[in-house]
Amino acid sequence: MPPSTTPRLVVPIDVKKKPWEHKLPLHNRWHPDIPPVVDVTEGELFRVEMVDWTGGSIADNDSAMDIKFLDLSITHYLSGPIKVVDKEGIPAKPGDLLAVEICDLGPLPGDEWGYTATFDRENGGGFLTDHFPAATKAIWYFEGVYAYSPQIPGVRFPGLTHPGVIGTAPSHELLNIWNERERKLVKEGHQSLKLCEVLHQRPLASLPTAKNCLLGMIKEGSSEWEKIANEAARTIPGRENGGNCDIKNLSRGSKVYLPVFVDGANLSTGDMHFSQGDGEVSFCGAIEMSGFLELKCEIIREGMREYLTPMGPTPLHVNPIFEPGPVEPRFSEWLVFEGISVDESGQQHFLDATVAYKRAVLNAIHYLSRFGYSKEQVYLLLSCCPCEGRISGIVDAPNAVATLAIPIAIFDQDVRPRCGRVPSGPRVVKRTPDVLRCSYDGALPITMNPGGGAESS
Amino acid sequence: MPPSTTPRLVVPIDVKKKPWEHKLPLHNRWHPDIPPVVDVTEGELFRVEMVDWTGGSIADNDSAMDIKFLDLSITHYLSGPIKVVDKEGIPAKPGDLLAVEICDLGPLPGDEWGYTATFDRENGGGFLTDHFPAATKAIWYFEGVYAYSPQIPGVRFPGLTHPGVIGTAPSHELLNIWNERERKLVKEGHQSLKLCEVLHQRPLASLPTAKNCLLGMIKEGSSEWEKIANEAARTIPGRENGGNCDIKNLSRGSKVYLPVFVDGANLSTGDMHFSQGDGEVSFCGAIEMSGFLELKCEIIREGMREYLTPMGPTPLHVNPIFEPGPVEPRFSEWLVFEGISVDESGQQHFLDATVAYKRAVLNAIHYLSRFGYSKEQVYLLLSCCPCEGRISGIVDAPNAVATLAIPIAIFDQDVRPRCGRVPSGPRVVKRTPDVLRCSYDGALPITMNPGGGAESS
Amino acid sequence: MPPSTTPRLVVPIDVKKKPWEHKLPLHNRWHPDIPPVVDVTEGELFRVEMVDWTGGSIADNDSAMDIKFLDLSITHYLSGPIKVVDKEGIPAKPGDLLAVEICDLGPLPGDEWGYTATFDRENGGGFLTDHFPAATKAIWYFEGVYAYSPQIPGVRFPGLTHPGVIGTAPSHELLNIWNERERKLVKEGHQSLKLCEVLHQRPLASLPTAKNCLLGMIKEGSSEWEKIANEAARTIPGRENGGNCDIKNLSRGSKVYLPVFVDGANLSTGDMHFSQGDGEVSFCGAIEMSGFLELKCEIIREGMREYLTPMGPTPLHVNPIFEPGPVEPRFSEWLVFEGISVDESGQQHFLDATVAYKRAVLNAIHYLSRFGYSKEQVYLLLSCCPCEGRISGIVDAPNAVATLAIPIAIFDQDVRPRCGRVPSGPRVVKRTPDVLRCSYDGALPITMNPGGGAESS
Amino acid sequence: MPPSTTPRLVVPIDVKKKPWEHKLPLHNRWHPDIPPVVDVTEGELFRVEMVDWTGGSIADNDSAMDIKFLDLSITHYLSGPIKVVDKEGIPAKPGDLLAVEICDLGPLPGDEWGYTATFDRENGGGFLTDHFPAATKAIWYFEGVYAYSPQIPGVRFPGLTHPGVIGTAPSHELLNIWNERERKLVKEGHQSLKLCEVLHQRPLASLPTAKNCLLGMIKEGSSEWEKIANEAARTIPGRENGGNCDIKNLSRGSKVYLPVFVDGANLSTGDMHFSQGDGEVSFCGAIEMSGFLELKCEIIREGMREYLTPMGPTPLHVNPIFEPGPVEPRFSEWLVFEGISVDESGQQHFLDATVAYKRAVLNAIHYLSRFGYSKEQVYLLLSCCPCEGRISGIVDAPNAVATLAIPIAIFDQDVRPRCGRVPSGPRVVKRTPDVLRCSYDGALPITMNPGGGAESS
Repeated sequence: MPPSTTPRLVVPIDVKKKPWEHKLPLHNRWHPDIPPVVDVTEGELFRVEMVDWTGGSIADNDSAMDIKFLDLSITHYLSGPIKVVDKEGIPAKPGDLLAVEICDLGPLPGDEWGYTATFDRENGGGFLTDHFPAATKAIWYFEGVYAYSPQIPGVRFPGLTHPGVIGTAPSHELLNIWNERERKLVKEGHQSLKLCEVLHQRPLASLPTAKNCLLGMIKEGSSEWEKIANEAARTIPGRENGGNCDIKNLSRGSKVYLPVFVDGANLSTGDMHFSQGDGEVSFCGAIEMSGFLELKCEIIREGMREYLTPMGPTPLHVNPIFEPGPVEPRFSEWLVFEGISVDESGQQHFLDATVAYKRAVLNAIHYLSRFGYSKEQVYLLLSCCPCEGRISGIVDAPNAVATLAIPIAIFDQDVRPRCGRVPSGPRVVKRTPDVLRCSYDGALPITMNPGGGAESS
Repeated sequence: MPPSTTPRLVVPIDVKKKPWEHKLPLHNRWHPDIPPVVDVTEGELFRVEMVDWTGGSIADNDSAMDIKFLDLSITHYLSGPIKVVDKEGIPAKPGDLLAVEICDLGPLPGDEWGYTATFDRENGGGFLTDHFPAATKAIWYFEGVYAYSPQIPGVRFPGLTHPGVIGTAPSHELLNIWNERERKLVKEGHQSLKLCEVLHQRPLASLPTAKNCLLGMIKEGSSEWEKIANEAARTIPGRENGGNCDIKNLSRGSKVYLPVFVDGANLSTGDMHFSQGDGEVSFCGAIEMSGFLELKCEIIREGMREYLTPMGPTPLHVNPIFEPGPVEPRFSEWLVFEGISVDESGQQHFLDATVAYKRAVLNAIHYLSRFGYSKEQVYLLLSCCPCEGRISGIVDAPNAVATLAIPIAIFDQDVRPRCGRVPSGPRVVKRTPDVLRCSYDGALPITMNPGGGAESS
Repeated sequence: MPPSTTPRLVVPIDVKKKPWEHKLPLHNRWHPDIPPVVDVTEGELFRVEMVDWTGGSIADNDSAMDIKFLDLSITHYLSGPIKVVDKEGIPAKPGDLLAVEICDLGPLPGDEWGYTATFDRENGGGFLTDHFPAATKAIWYFEGVYAYSPQIPGVRFPGLTHPGVIGTAPSHELLNIWNERERKLVKEGHQSLKLCEVLHQRPLASLPTAKNCLLGMIKEGSSEWEKIANEAARTIPGRENGGNCDIKNLSRGSKVYLPVFVDGANLSTGDMHFSQGDGEVSFCGAIEMSGFLELKCEIIREGMREYLTPMGPTPLHVNPIFEPGPVEPRFSEWLVFEGISVDESGQQHFLDATVAYKRAVLNAIHYLSRFGYSKEQVYLLLSCCPCEGRISGIVDAPNAVATLAIPIAIFDQDVRPRCGRVPSGPRVVKRTPDVLRCSYDGALPITMNPGGGAESS
Repeated sequence: MPPSTTPRLVVPIDVKKKPWEHKLPLHNRWHPDIPPVVDVTEGELFRVEMVDWTGGSIADNDSAMDIKFLDLSITHYLSGPIKVVDKEGIPAKPGDLLAVEICDLGPLPGDEWGYTATFDRENGGGFLTDHFPAATKAIWYFEGVYAYSPQIPGVRFPGLTHPGVIGTAPSHELLNIWNERERKLVKEGHQSLKLCEVLHQRPLASLPTAKNCLLGMIKEGSSEWEKIANEAARTIPGRENGGNCDIKNLSRGSKVYLPVFVDGANLSTGDMHFSQGDGEVSFCGAIEMSGFLELKCEIIREGMREYLTPMGPTPLHVNPIFEPGPVEPRFSEWLVFEGISVDESGQQHFLDATVAYKRAVLNAIHYLSRFGYSKEQVYLLLSCCPCEGRISGIVDAPNAVATLAIPIAIFDQDVRPRCGRVPSGPRVVKRTPDVLRCSYDGALPITMNPGGGAESS
């Protein structure tokens, strides 16, 4: 009897259930003591299913109210942890490198839709929250490899589908490093952040909070739960363990080389994106969906020590390595917008790629809004379509130069500048309907937690 | 008699001459009053030749001393300005958009070589000057589309050749904006720049200086020369007029849509790069060379007002738009390094893409140094090979995620992580010879000018 | 309630059932009177499942006996016909064009494997049957987008998955044209085919036969069945209706513009290929599998008359048009083999692209066999891996030039010619195990039917 | 002093001179006894300049008369032969493989134009000479990487420039093989070629003729000249030595592995093409031009025996191997036309890829002619634009399936089929002016030479 290559389903999901109702319960924090829910063997092909990052809190409906009032302390709901062992049953060890190949991925059958959104400025905001403070939402439907949105008419593109979050569990030591440095930022941040005030309207970091904490098989209310919940790291930022790296090219055929910090590696995944633009600028910014991954792991013994050089005070200050896969959508024509590190007030910043990229994105939004779109439509579009954000120049003081390249073929009209065309004139057809949006009231009935993460009271 | 399509040579260069010895003299500053050296007509194919950015100051020899002591006040030597008129002879006007198509480009016949270098920390440095303070240099030779360096053995790659500098002349008003905002940065910069101290070892900006000023047909010593020289903008940073944007994909078949600020547009070009990586991290960081451009211009009347939305306090706060060309080198396999906005001291920064990219570059340098290379070899290589620098995530506070993707095919060995391979072991062949380098003495006999630009006394 | 984008499953398949046991029965002939099994509406996303082309006759086992004795009169088992109507319920009409978009496709979950084979020379053979007369088989397993074969070690590649057969039903008039011209070929063929005798060892055409005929909802044994079975066209060749066109790039995101010959178009699909090389040279030559298609149809009214020009004596002598999709695997390095129209006996043929391509394939097989492979391994590999077969020159009498380009990245070794390497020497590791194979006995206990199709008695 | 990488100009060309007036005289035949005009050393970068294939017989003017009356016995004028020696001065030897890297190439400066043409049916014709018997011509002008033609308005594309002819000299033994097999074809051809009569209107082969023979440094009129001229092979077809292989992807960065048959290899090159479609269907079918190659050779000792397996009765029955380069133009959207091996009379052919490709090309011509073009415009366009000709299926008796893929981006209109668009209606703008053309008179005042090559009396 030959071997089957049907992937073993190790984490099943029922999107009709709540995240905490699953037999293999989900988790939404990083902590070494969250126990693995399943073992996989090196070389084995296995399938992991995942809820969307909010665990079903956002609905396919006609309102952005669910976005406006989403409590971010719930995110991201992850599947796993998955313990990885070699063919002799010996688990991956700290210091190894875990090579994870993404053999296939996609939406869950029967749940072929997603959403892109921006949060209210008082509740997490987005990269351009100073310009676009209101909560907005667009729904995307999938037709095989393609996505289209009723709220952003006239665009359709193939998805470069990927997991937003893929990572190993941190060790206690690494967790402490995270908590200390992020706490320090929150504490000291406001006085030192003079240059980029426009960005400060967003929380500086989301510190540990027991609120809405889900810890897999650790029973809520137990003393263990209390301890872990109060120190477990939030999942918002990417860190040394990979995590929410949001690398849009991590699609079919890709490989991730993750450092191993705990026995078994304890791999977790989630936050599936049908498609995302570099930067994921609107924050809830990819086409967010539930989905599945088909994975294959290899343990490179001592590989972390061999291949990754710590860039920091401890041997843990490392980052994963990636190999993108061979089946990305091909585009041959792009329109490229540039930004330099001068902000919208005209102030000069020193080689600040963040400011430069913000400017490039703003330039693109304003340009494309001349072709019949509202600025909010373009903001959401650039956040989720397969656009490329580049650091083009980072040395020519004082200006960093960042560029945003948009594939022309995703539009049903030619969006290039042309002689004698007046796109903003009366001939331009308004692209309707528009994004779903809530009003911006200036203050949400949400209390900020001490870590800066905005959460509803 | 049919029309000739041989491009008209409008700016000839003799690389044996000094920049100031040419009949159509070069310039190394941006100013509205530098008069055009030639007119071209919309639709006409014309050829511009250019010296390398230092005007021949760097030699194809066995020493990095010329790099160590280069006076940066001489850069960049540009060809032009070129006045663009339409077929009726009416010049491009402020508010128009100048579409410049790069029909062809390349090295100058007989001068098929280039160099990549880092400056001494006291003389301009580079993106990683805190790690690599010494001046280093590598020479590259071209074999048609390919480049190789005796100082970085084992790599060979096709060039994505492009002009580092392409821009229109600023108006007086725009020039004033530049000078004010950069002066303000230099003045206020040091106290406000707390977060990124590692970057501060470089000059904050290079303010106007008459030293080594070359102003085309404006005769040195005249009162006009004095006036212009003391207010003309330095060419180091990219700005609203394009300029030193260092966009590596601006190669054959590309189009640049430049805003027009003065009558005739006054297009200048220079700083030819045989190849460059995104970010141009070592600062003198592309494969720097002399070269030629074959260009064709189109005037989009009122296009600046129509297509570019000001992102700032005045209508001049705009940026160019680009379309890359169809003949870029194709690579299908990449190795991707990630960085997050935690610096090498372990300090957390808030969504700082510059810090994240620095970390990604450092990760790549350390990784590749395990395959027989010195870190300086990799630093120069990543600065000039066709690697891609991406802003992958810019919203997941506090960590920006930047990635650096390196095409695997440029190496003569497989540089991917593998089980059972110990690349740093005794089997690894040292890649010799190494880069040319000078010692770092901690202080150069160079005086800093008030603008922060380091210049030799 | 928003619209669901989950595709409607219109033809379900159970691979454990025989083709004739399905509720929506399959068919293996082209005929206008095979009734549709289901209706779909223009714009609707629907899913069709399909058995492999032999309806499960080939097993995942250790023997090629099933290949050797396969009765080709059973092939291809197709799903459908599917009747296409517009949103008003009006069916597609003769003269329309049916635009079919392949939104997604893949293997059937739980059945992720396939096979590549050559038939015995007495039973259908293959393109190189004069060189390789024996039946051989290789099994392929899928890991997401990748396939690998235990019988062809050292290669692994992403599939460019596609349906081998997609077509509309012919009208009676078109069916008559097919039967007449193919009957004429079989009758007159042998005396006229002097030049390419090497190819004659294969059947010239497969004429209608009631043997093993399956006609969907037409009940076997009825007089209608008898009539249809004796005149329905075999599915082996591609024809005016599309059919077995075996265009390997017809993958995710592709569009096929099919001519409509009968009311409702009567679309049928089958013969799913995980991957195929141009030419499908071994005949059972793709990675043959069961699978599914997610399709969306558009009716272009009068489009056949508008867009397709008949190339023949009747308005029916047309061919479909195709648009490949945007997500093909990317390869950047290829090794290209050339063939000219001189056959292996040294005889010169006149601009014969078939002979030239045969020579290119033979050149590639012999070359790659120096890297440890048996020739049969390479023959099967070139039949199913994503290699490109080109007609490079077709005018330079007397030599057609054909080329076969093989992506280098599919091999785990560098297969390029190199100085000082002696690949055929004793250092070359034999790639074992080898393909499964049967002996060639010179005569199979199979009777040839009058149409030339070889069938078992 | 470092080494120069400026390529050494080993064969200079002056396009104002006749082919026989050059100091290093050209040749237009293949023969082992044509002496080399220059030596090059392995590893050396050298430059070869070439006249167009007719040596300047076709002019950039408003008439196709030069095409109609061109005497094909003059073609192709080649540069070389070039003797290749290793670093010790030892020449390449029979049995070696000569790896030729094309480091760069392009038009000659000052001669940036080309032409595409079809010959009169009585004078060589083209692939579709039965449909298009008249001589036609279009002129192309180059703007850097792009070409456009006043005679085919509305298209512009980047060139995939390549040499049509690159080859080594045959040995006497190989030359005899060529002459014998082609003579046999001419002698026996007409009675055996029953199936493809439409193709017979073209010469079957061009046998040796002293007429218009140019033999490099062999002085015309000498007895040696007489002997060589009467046995030297014509250059029209590609053969074992490479030669006129017309592989359109043989561009910048490509490598050709040529078998060596005589001491020194005696490399010749010519027939530069700015761009060509697969098949070069109109015969004078690329954008024909003068040009240059920058080459680098490597001798793989014994490589011919090691890597090339003879496919014929002698060890000389081999073909070159190719590696395409990394800088081909990228296109992501294609329109694909299909043909099957049923000819325009409705007759069925057996797996004849030539007939199938002819049908695909005809389908494309008729389709595109609905967008305002004359059929002759499309015929010339498909011959020279970067379209791909594939052998998609070669096993499904009786129909070979060939496809022709055309990049959509080369047109200034969207040429895809669409609902509700009536491209052939009165709204379609005629693309004028049209190709230059001569009348077809049915018989030219040209005598056919015994070899079948049509030549003017």
